[in-house]
Amino acid sequence: MSKPKSQSILVGAFFFLTFQMLFSQSRPRELGIPFGILPSGALNAITDVPGVKVGHLTKIEGSDVRTGVTAILPHGGNLFQDKVPAAIFVGNGFGKLAGVTQVKELGNLESPIILTNTLSVAAGIEGVVRFSLSQQGNEAVQSVNALVGETNDGYLNDIRGMHISPEEVIHAIESANSGAVNEGNVGAGTGTVCFGWKGGIGTSSRKLPESLGGYTVGVLVQTNFGGNLQIAGVPVGENLGKYPFKDALEKSDGSCMIVVATDAPVLERNLERMAQRAMMGLAKTGGIASNGSGDYVVAFSTNEGLRIPYSRPSQQLQKGEFLANDDMTALFMAVIEATEEAIINSLFAAETLEGKGGRTVEALPKEKVLEWVISK
Amino acid sequence: MSKPKSQSILVGAFFFLTFQMLFSQSRPRELGIPFGILPSGALNAITDVPGVKVGHLTKIEGSDVRTGVTAILPHGGNLFQDKVPAAIFVGNGFGKLAGVTQVKELGNLESPIILTNTLSVAAGIEGVVRFSLSQQGNEAVQSVNALVGETNDGYLNDIRGMHISPEEVIHAIESANSGAVNEGNVGAGTGTVCFGWKGGIGTSSRKLPESLGGYTVGVLVQTNFGGNLQIAGVPVGENLGKYPFKDALEKSDGSCMIVVATDAPVLERNLERMAQRAMMGLAKTGGIASNGSGDYVVAFSTNEGLRIPYSRPSQQLQKGEFLANDDMTALFMAVIEATEEAIINSLFAAETLEGKGGRTVEALPKEKVLEWVISK
Amino acid sequence: MSKPKSQSILVGAFFFLTFQMLFSQSRPRELGIPFGILPSGALNAITDVPGVKVGHLTKIEGSDVRTGVTAILPHGGNLFQDKVPAAIFVGNGFGKLAGVTQVKELGNLESPIILTNTLSVAAGIEGVVRFSLSQQGNEAVQSVNALVGETNDGYLNDIRGMHISPEEVIHAIESANSGAVNEGNVGAGTGTVCFGWKGGIGTSSRKLPESLGGYTVGVLVQTNFGGNLQIAGVPVGENLGKYPFKDALEKSDGSCMIVVATDAPVLERNLERMAQRAMMGLAKTGGIASNGSGDYVVAFSTNEGLRIPYSRPSQQLQKGEFLANDDMTALFMAVIEATEEAIINSLFAAETLEGKGGRTVEALPKEKVLEWVISK
Amino acid sequence: MSKPKSQSILVGAFFFLTFQMLFSQSRPRELGIPFGILPSGALNAITDVPGVKVGHLTKIEGSDVRTGVTAILPHGGNLFQDKVPAAIFVGNGFGKLAGVTQVKELGNLESPIILTNTLSVAAGIEGVVRFSLSQQGNEAVQSVNALVGETNDGYLNDIRGMHISPEEVIHAIESANSGAVNEGNVGAGTGTVCFGWKGGIGTSSRKLPESLGGYTVGVLVQTNFGGNLQIAGVPVGENLGKYPFKDALEKSDGSCMIVVATDAPVLERNLERMAQRAMMGLAKTGGIASNGSGDYVVAFSTNEGLRIPYSRPSQQLQKGEFLANDDMTALFMAVIEATEEAIINSLFAAETLEGKGGRTVEALPKEKVLEWVISK
Repeated sequence: MSKPKSQSILVGAFFFLTFQMLFSQSRPRELGIPFGILPSGALNAITDVPGVKVGHLTKIEGSDVRTGVTAILPHGGNLFQDKVPAAIFVGNGFGKLAGVTQVKELGNLESPIILTNTLSVAAGIEGVVRFSLSQQGNEAVQSVNALVGETNDGYLNDIRGMHISPEEVIHAIESANSGAVNEGNVGAGTGTVCFGWKGGIGTSSRKLPESLGGYTVGVLVQTNFGGNLQIAGVPVGENLGKYPFKDALEKSDGSCMIVVATDAPVLERNLERMAQRAMMGLAKTGGIASNGSGDYVVAFSTNEGLRIPYSRPSQQLQKGEFLANDDMTALFMAVIEATEEAIINSLFAAETLEGKGGRTVEALPKEKVLEWVISK
Repeated sequence: MSKPKSQSILVGAFFFLTFQMLFSQSRPRELGIPFGILPSGALNAITDVPGVKVGHLTKIEGSDVRTGVTAILPHGGNLFQDKVPAAIFVGNGFGKLAGVTQVKELGNLESPIILTNTLSVAAGIEGVVRFSLSQQGNEAVQSVNALVGETNDGYLNDIRGMHISPEEVIHAIESANSGAVNEGNVGAGTGTVCFGWKGGIGTSSRKLPESLGGYTVGVLVQTNFGGNLQIAGVPVGENLGKYPFKDALEKSDGSCMIVVATDAPVLERNLERMAQRAMMGLAKTGGIASNGSGDYVVAFSTNEGLRIPYSRPSQQLQKGEFLANDDMTALFMAVIEATEEAIINSLFAAETLEGKGGRTVEALPKEKVLEWVISK
Repeated sequence: MSKPKSQSILVGAFFFLTFQMLFSQSRPRELGIPFGILPSGALNAITDVPGVKVGHLTKIEGSDVRTGVTAILPHGGNLFQDKVPAAIFVGNGFGKLAGVTQVKELGNLESPIILTNTLSVAAGIEGVVRFSLSQQGNEAVQSVNALVGETNDGYLNDIRGMHISPEEVIHAIESANSGAVNEGNVGAGTGTVCFGWKGGIGTSSRKLPESLGGYTVGVLVQTNFGGNLQIAGVPVGENLGKYPFKDALEKSDGSCMIVVATDAPVLERNLERMAQRAMMGLAKTGGIASNGSGDYVVAFSTNEGLRIPYSRPSQQLQKGEFLANDDMTALFMAVIEATEEAIINSLFAAETLEGKGGRTVEALPKEKVLEWVISK
Repeated sequence: MSKPKSQSILVGAFFFLTFQMLFSQSRPRELGIPFGILPSGALNAITDVPGVKVGHLTKIEGSDVRTGVTAILPHGGNLFQDKVPAAIFVGNGFGKLAGVTQVKELGNLESPIILTNTLSVAAGIEGVVRFSLSQQGNEAVQSVNALVGETNDGYLNDIRGMHISPEEVIHAIESANSGAVNEGNVGAGTGTVCFGWKGGIGTSSRKLPESLGGYTVGVLVQTNFGGNLQIAGVPVGENLGKYPFKDALEKSDGSCMIVVATDAPVLERNLERMAQRAMMGLAKTGGIASNGSGDYVVAFSTNEGLRIPYSRPSQQLQKGEFLANDDMTALFMAVIEATEEAIINSLFAAETLEGKGGRTVEALPKEKVLEWVISK
C-alpha cells in the first residue's frame, strides 16, 4: 500500500506539468507536504529566532573540491563577552564535534557555531579562535571554546586535501546575517549525501501560540546520513528502492549536525532536553543513527535575560527568569517538528552534484515524492 | 491530504464488514500495517529471543483497581549467579526506574526486570529482593540490584492505594514463560493510557538475515504516553482530533517503559546504543517525550558466551566474542522497527476499560485506522 | 617516616592520660586534628545549613540486628509542594540509590532523603511515598520520587532479614530536627564498617567568609567503605597495618553515601559540580572507590529564592538569582574539606560493636591516631 | 602542628648540605617521599607500560614563548589500523579536549594523544590528522578522531600568539620513544603553573604483584592547576603560605590533563572507572578542581588481545579476554597512587622559569618540602 497506485500515474503527470517550474524555488511546506501541528515562523528558518545569524562559505573548485563552512551566530554581538545558555546532546558520537565538554560543564556557548567537513575541524577551531581573539573587547582573552561540528563529505569532496582554511571560516562568520537562509548545496552542506540522495543544509522553525508562550524554535541541519527515508509518513526510501541493507551489504553511515535555537527563556538543562528531542525529529525522517553516524544536537537560547556576561563583579548573582519544567513540552514538540522539516527541506533544496572522481549524487526525485505524499 | 478521502468511505465499509470479527485477535502486522523492512520473528514478540520469559500479573478489582505487574526474565536460570550484559538509556527521566546506576557501572543485570505502576516500585523491589534471596544457590547473597520500572496508571487506577504486593511481584516472576506474550490490558499495562486511547503491553521482534548475523531483537513496551499518534506514517492523531495542545492547554504527559532483548553477542556499550535507538522507534509513533514522561529503555543480551558468573576465581579473565561496532547498524534498525511496532501493537490489543471514579478510556478505533493506513 | 618516632612514645602517654576521658565526647577538630583552611559552622554539622533537619532511627535488637535509617530533610515544610534544586554525582555506582534519574532530569528533589541498608531500599521508598501521600496538601498527588540510598551493613547486621519497615522510615522522617547531629553507630550508620574499623554517620560543615558570599556548606556521610586510611595526611592505615591488598587477597569493598547541603543560591548544574567534589574529599581520607563500592553524592540547595513550587500557573516563569560559575570555587573547596572531616568524624564517633554471628568490629584506636597526627 | 618544628631546623640544614647537588636529578620517591603501598615500575613512568611512547616538543623562544607539545602513543604501530580500547573521564570540563565523544561512543582511540596549550588545539588536531593521513596503510582514510588536550600556559607564554604549528605536533609524535620520560618544563608542561609553583610534565607507574595480575599502570600529567598543596599528607601549601582564597580573592584556576595507560586487559567501561580514580589521586595532592580548571583523564589499554582492527571482515566477532569487575580494585588503587606521585614529580622536576612580560614562576622550594615530609 505504500507503493504508488496505478491511477496515480495520471495524477503524477499533472503534478509534473504544474509544479515543474516551481520546483527549484519551492520548499516542501509550500508544495503541500505537512510537518506536524505547530505553525512555522515567518521565514521557516532558524533565523526566525530574533538575533540569530547564518553565514555560508561554499567551496566548489575544479572537479574535486565540494565542501564549505556554515556559521551560526546566536547573536550579532560579542559572544565571548555575552555568552548564551547552551547544551549538547549526542545522538551518536561517531564524530569530531569539538568544544563539547566546556559547554556541558559551564552551560554556555561563547563563540559562533561552525559546521564544516570532518577533516577541517582544526581549521574551524583556528578560525573561531582567531576571530574571537581579534574581536574588540577581547584583547586580554586567552581561552576560547570553539564549537565546531562536521559531517564527512568525502564521497564527493577531496576531503583529504583539507581545503578549508581558517580565513574561510572567519569569512563565513563575518558574512553571517539574519533573513532567509540558503539551503541545499551550500556551506557545510555543499558535498553531503543524505538517504542516498544529495543532502545539504536545511532549516525550519516553529512559532508557539501565545497561550503556550509565543516562543520561536529554529533548527538548522547539515544532512549527511542514511536510513529508510520517510517523508510525511510515506516510505519514500522503500518506494524508490533505496534503503539500508537492501542487498544485505549496503550500510547507511553518515552524520547529521543539528543546531536548535530558541528565544524562549530556557536554561541549559532544559536546552539539553530540547536537544535530545531533535533526534526524535530525525527519526521521523527514517534516520537510524547508524554506527558510523556523528549525530549531534547543539541547542542555545538567545533570551536576553539569560545572557552570561564574561566581565562581572565577583559574588554578583546572575538574575534570571526561566521556564519551569512543566512548560517545556510545547517546545519539545516544536523541536521535533522543525527538525523533521529541516531535514526534508535540505533534500528538496539540494541539487544533483558531480564531484570527486566523477562521482555524481542525484537530487531526490521530488516529483515522485510529491506525487506519493500529496495523493496519499 | 491526511484526512480520509471521500471515496474511501466505501472502502472503509468493506473493511468494517470483513475484518470486524477478526479484529480482537488480529495484530496490526496481520491486518496489513507495515512496519519497516526487516522480518519479524516467529512470534513477533520479545520471547522470540531464546530464553526470554515474560510473566503478567493483572489486577482488576472492584471499580477502582486497574493495575498489575509484568516481569521480563532474560533467562530461566538463576540471574544473580549468571548475570547478563545490560544497559539503560534514559529518554526522559521523569520516572522512578530503580536500579539504574548499578547496571550502568557494572554493565550487567542480575535480576528479573519488573514493570508496574509508579507508586508500587517499592513492592517491585521488595518482590525481586525476596525472590532473589530465596533462590537456590543465593543463600549467602546480601546485595541484589532490582530493576523496577513503572508508568503512572493513576487515571484509571486507584494508584494511591498501592495495591501491588511483593508477593504479587514474585507471582509475576514465577509465572513467566516463553511463547506468545499477551498484549493490551494485562500486567503492568492494565490501566495505562497512550495517545489518549487505551494503552498497555505490546511486543514485537525482528530477525536479521543470516548475512547480517541472523540475530533476533525483541522489544516489550508498557505504553502510557502521549503525542501526535502516527501509524505507518498516517497522522492518526490529527485525523481523530486527538493531539497535543489541541486547545492550547492539553498536555501529553505519561511514560513509556521499553525493554529490548537480543541474542546477539553485544556488550554493554553497544547495548546502550541499541537502547538509545528505541526512542527513535517511539518517535515514529508520534511520541514527543513530554516533560512529564518517564521514558526508559533497558537492553540486555542473552548470549550465553557473554554471561557474567557471580562465583569465579579471582584474576580469572572473562572470555568473550562480541560484535564489533561496525556490525551494529542492522541491530539498531531492528530496535527502531520493533519498538515502533510494539507500541502500535499495544494500542491494537488494548480494549476499552472503565476504571477509577467511573472514568473510561476508549480503545483505539481500529477500523478507522486500518482504513486510513491500508487505503493510503 | 610515617611510623611513630621513639621519642613520641612519651608524648603518646601524655595524650593517653589527658584525653582519655574526653574522648567519647570529643570530635577530631576539638582534639586538634586539622581539616583544611575554611572555618566550620557553629555545629560543624549539616544542620548548620538553615532549615536542614536530620532524623535517625537506630535498630539494635538481639544479637543480629544492627541497622537503621537516617532521614535528611532539606527543609521542614512540604517538600513535594516546595521542591529544592538538587543533583547527584555517582562516584561508583555499585549501589541501589533509587530516584536518581528524576533528580537529574528535573533538577530537583521532592522528598526527604533516606539512607538505610542495601536490602531495605524498598522499605525506604515505601516509607517516603506513604509519608508524602499523607502530608497535608498532597491529597491529589499520584507520583513521588523517593531518593533512597544505602550501604551494606551485612557484616554486622542480619541484612537478609530486612528488618526495616516503612513505618520506621516514616518515624525517622518525623523525628528529624535541626541542631546537633548524632554521629557514629546511629541511624543508617548503626552497623557499618569503614577502613576496617567501625564506621557510621559523620557530619561537618564549612562557612565561607563574607567576602566569598558567607554561604554554608554542610555534609553528612554514611561510611562503609575501604581503602588506605589517611587522617590529616597521616597514613593511619599503614601505621595500623590495615590497608588494601595487605596480603594480596583482602579487598576493600563497601560504600559511602554523601549528602551535601548548602544555602548558597546554586542551581542543579553547579550542584552537580559540588557533588562531584565530595569524592575528592573522600579521596583525601584514603578511600579508593573500590569495585564493590556504592559511592553517591546528593547535593541540594535550601536557598529560598530557588524553590520550585509544585502548583503554579502555566507559563509563569521561575525567577531566580543564582551564583555564576566563576564564584563556585570556594564552595567546591568547602565540599572537599567538609566531606573529609565528616568521614573522619564518623570514625571517631563510632564505637566498637558486636553484631551478627558474634562478629565484632573495633572502633578506630583514637589514642594512637591522635598521637601520630598531633605529634607530626 | 603542620609547621616545621624548631628542632627540625637542624635537620633541614643537614638535608640542605647533603641533597643539594642530588636535587636536580632526584625524584621525590628517591628522596624518600612515600606515595602509597604498591611498588612502582622500573622507570616509574608511563613508559613502564610496554609499547607506550612519549615525545616532547619544547618551545622556548625569545622572552615570551614558553610552550610545547607532548605526544603519548599507546603503541608504536599504526594506531588508526590497530585501535586500542579507551575511555575518558571529565573531572571538570572547563577545557577544550577534542575527540571526546567518539572515544566514548566507540570505546576506542585511533591516534596519538596530544597535549599542548589551550589556543593550539587546532594545531594539535591538524598535526594528528596530517600524520595519520600520511601513515603507510592509511591512504584511503577519510576520518580521523584526534584526541587533543590542553592546559592554559598563558601566564608565562604568549598564548595568543598561537606558536605551535601542525608540523611541530608531528615532530613530537615522530620523536616519541619508550624509556625514561623527561619531566618538568618540557613539552606541554613548558609553561605551566601548579599550586602557584612551576608545574609541568610528571609521570609515575605502579606494578601490581603477580597475585593481583602483575599488570602495570602508568600515568602522565600536565600540571597547571591550583588548590591547597599537600605532599605525602603534609600541608605544604599552608606551610608555604600559598593556598586558595588566602586573601579571600585569590582563585586557583588552571587545569590538569592526565593520561592513564595499562597493559591490563581492560575494556572501555572499566577503563572509564580507572580514569575516574585519577581525579582521586589529584585530590590527594590538594587539587580542588576549581571552576576554571579543565581536568580530564584519558585511559587506554595496550593489551594486544583487545586491539580493534580497522580492517576486518563484516560479521567477524571480536574475541577478547578481559578483567572482570571484581578484579578492578587493585588497578583503581594503582591509578590513584600513580596520579598523586606523577603530579608531585612534575613539581619536583620543574625549574624556576621566566617568561612573558618578565614574569617569573618559582620552582617549588624542594628543600623545605623534603624537610617537612621526611621529618614528620
